[in-house]
Amino acid sequence: MATVSREFDLDTLIADTEAEILRLVGDHDASTAGAYEMIRYHLGLDHDGAPAGKRMRPLLGLLAYASIAGDHAAALPGAAAVELGHNFSLVHDDIEDGDRERRHRPTLWALHGVAQAINTGDMLFSLSRVALHRLSDLGFSDAKVLRLMRLYDETCVALCEGQYIDIATSESNALMSVELYFDMIGRKTAALIAASVEAGALLATDDDEVIARYRAFGWALGLAFQLNDDLLGIWGAERATGKEPTDIARHKKTLPVIYAFEHAGPEDRDRLAELYEKANPTHDDVTEIIAILERSGAHDFTRNEARRYRDEALAELDAAGVVDARARQKLEQIIVSVISA
Amino acid sequence: MATVSREFDLDTLIADTEAEILRLVGDHDASTAGAYEMIRYHLGLDHDGAPAGKRMRPLLGLLAYASIAGDHAAALPGAAAVELGHNFSLVHDDIEDGDRERRHRPTLWALHGVAQAINTGDMLFSLSRVALHRLSDLGFSDAKVLRLMRLYDETCVALCEGQYIDIATSESNALMSVELYFDMIGRKTAALIAASVEAGALLATDDDEVIARYRAFGWALGLAFQLNDDLLGIWGAERATGKEPTDIARHKKTLPVIYAFEHAGPEDRDRLAELYEKANPTHDDVTEIIAILERSGAHDFTRNEARRYRDEALAELDAAGVVDARARQKLEQIIVSVISA
Repeated sequence: MATVSREFDLDTLIADTEAEILRLVGDHDASTAGAYEMIRYHLGLDHDGAPAGKRMRPLLGLLAYASIAGDHAAALPGAAAVELGHNFSLVHDDIEDGDRERRHRPTLWALHGVAQAINTGDMLFSLSRVALHRLSDLGFSDAKVLRLMRLYDETCVALCEGQYIDIATSESNALMSVELYFDMIGRKTAALIAASVEAGALLATDDDEVIARYRAFGWALGLAFQLNDDLLGIWGAERATGKEPTDIARHKKTLPVIYAFEHAGPEDRDRLAELYEKANPTHDDVTEIIAILERSGAHDFTRNEARRYRDEALAELDAAGVVDARARQKLEQIIVSVISA
Repeated sequence: MATVSREFDLDTLIADTEAEILRLVGDHDASTAGAYEMIRYHLGLDHDGAPAGKRMRPLLGLLAYASIAGDHAAALPGAAAVELGHNFSLVHDDIEDGDRERRHRPTLWALHGVAQAINTGDMLFSLSRVALHRLSDLGFSDAKVLRLMRLYDETCVALCEGQYIDIATSESNALMSVELYFDMIGRKTAALIAASVEAGALLATDDDEVIARYRAFGWALGLAFQLNDDLLGIWGAERATGKEPTDIARHKKTLPVIYAFEHAGPEDRDRLAELYEKANPTHDDVTEIIAILERSGAHDFTRNEARRYRDEALAELDAAGVVDARARQKLEQIIVSVISA
């Protein structure tokens, strides 16, 4: 493991998290080597330079811990767990959404079939829980480890509940509303980000008020993150983020679209429904949809909500009374980089 | 919860397990009611008389606990967890194997699509872990609950490893061997049955030698159970069990077939390979395959192995020095009913 850096250099935190994960996902024996190979491929740990995720959840957890404890090493099993858990959900989401590519490489199911991909996701899920047991070896009390596990387990249920709502409403816009959308992203996105931050805090302190503040910070950040993602999915090109704004062509149901279905005038709404039913919308169709969204106020509403939750996240961080200024600065850096809106 | 029955009536144990499960899988709120409905459907808890599984794993766990502690109620959260965990794997197996029916009803994916079924399996998995936390409420020490969770988490990894081997070898008989088959069913079947029994024992006693004996009992029983299932899948009709012997028509790779590929004479082996490649074998093809299996000694080998592991299971139970004679009798009853070979 790398030496602890009091600067909380993000690359060091990521490298340490990956080393912690690799303790679990190296080959165990010949008959199952292929399974661990698939896992490392999905995690971008198969060779140097493989495209990996941003590791946002473990970073938030480690920084939350470090912002109280002044160090990050002891929280690494928690960081490994949330990253493995997040990736279990990605592997299954890719099958559920029929996505053949992730991070410019074929998804697991596209490479190895649906059966192996489902099972590899299950294995990531199982390993995410095994990861947490090393907290006991690092000296955390049984009560603390159990409390963390309860948080993690309940978060996983929420994650699946959010995904249920997503799939159940994917066939019909009529089933979705702005209210239900916030219910869904709370469970599907904010819950795990909130849990990552809360986990870091609860490993570092017994003060329930502080823990609750950190959780509230993570929750608001999670919502802001998702809303920002929704904006990028439609208006991303304007902002030169490298992420292609393909949500409309892919019929993704994100807040701007749901808002427009609720708030556009009757004529715009009918036209939106008509355009959204096209299997392969043209460039002109997409342009027209975006114009309707903007006329309905969907862009402004979504951007304002994203900013509101970002500010709420920062306010909760202030209220938590973070001890370590450098860790605090890195947390702010993540917030600002994540919320570009 | 039903009153504790010192007779350890199996129907009572099943009813209590189902009540424990229903604490977790009742409706929570309107937006996720459909998810819990799918879970209850799969578990056979949607209405009286819905076809349910045998609940073998929770029964073994409760009886193992009761055979030491003289009572079963405190072990119910563990029983709920193994049953939920087992059913998570069934929901995903049904997708992976393309099975459209289970217990004479459509499988979840056949009814609700692959996406919802994957997610419902994930939810069952998450809930199985939430179930275990109630052990803390019932007064078990944090150390005990954590030890049980570690056992459960490592078992889930083994389960996925076994499933990986199963899928990886499903395309080619050349990849499979008798040795690898035992490796596979150890992880895929014996591990969870062993863990169910071990969990019951470790909740009841701190004596590691006793716990190890119970585990060995469960492991041997798990192997015997699988081998017996393999026999029924081919020769079941002879034994009037109600289970249709369709494994050959469905190209399932079970021990008798793998054994025959390894041990039949060269001529029989070529013919077996030829017959096994037919997408839709006729009745005559199946008859010929069975004749080859029998000539190769596959039936006798499998039956003898099943009996050997059954006897080993009984011997381990003797060695464990079971305290409660009535629970012991019920455990024997399950062993005998499960191993008909």
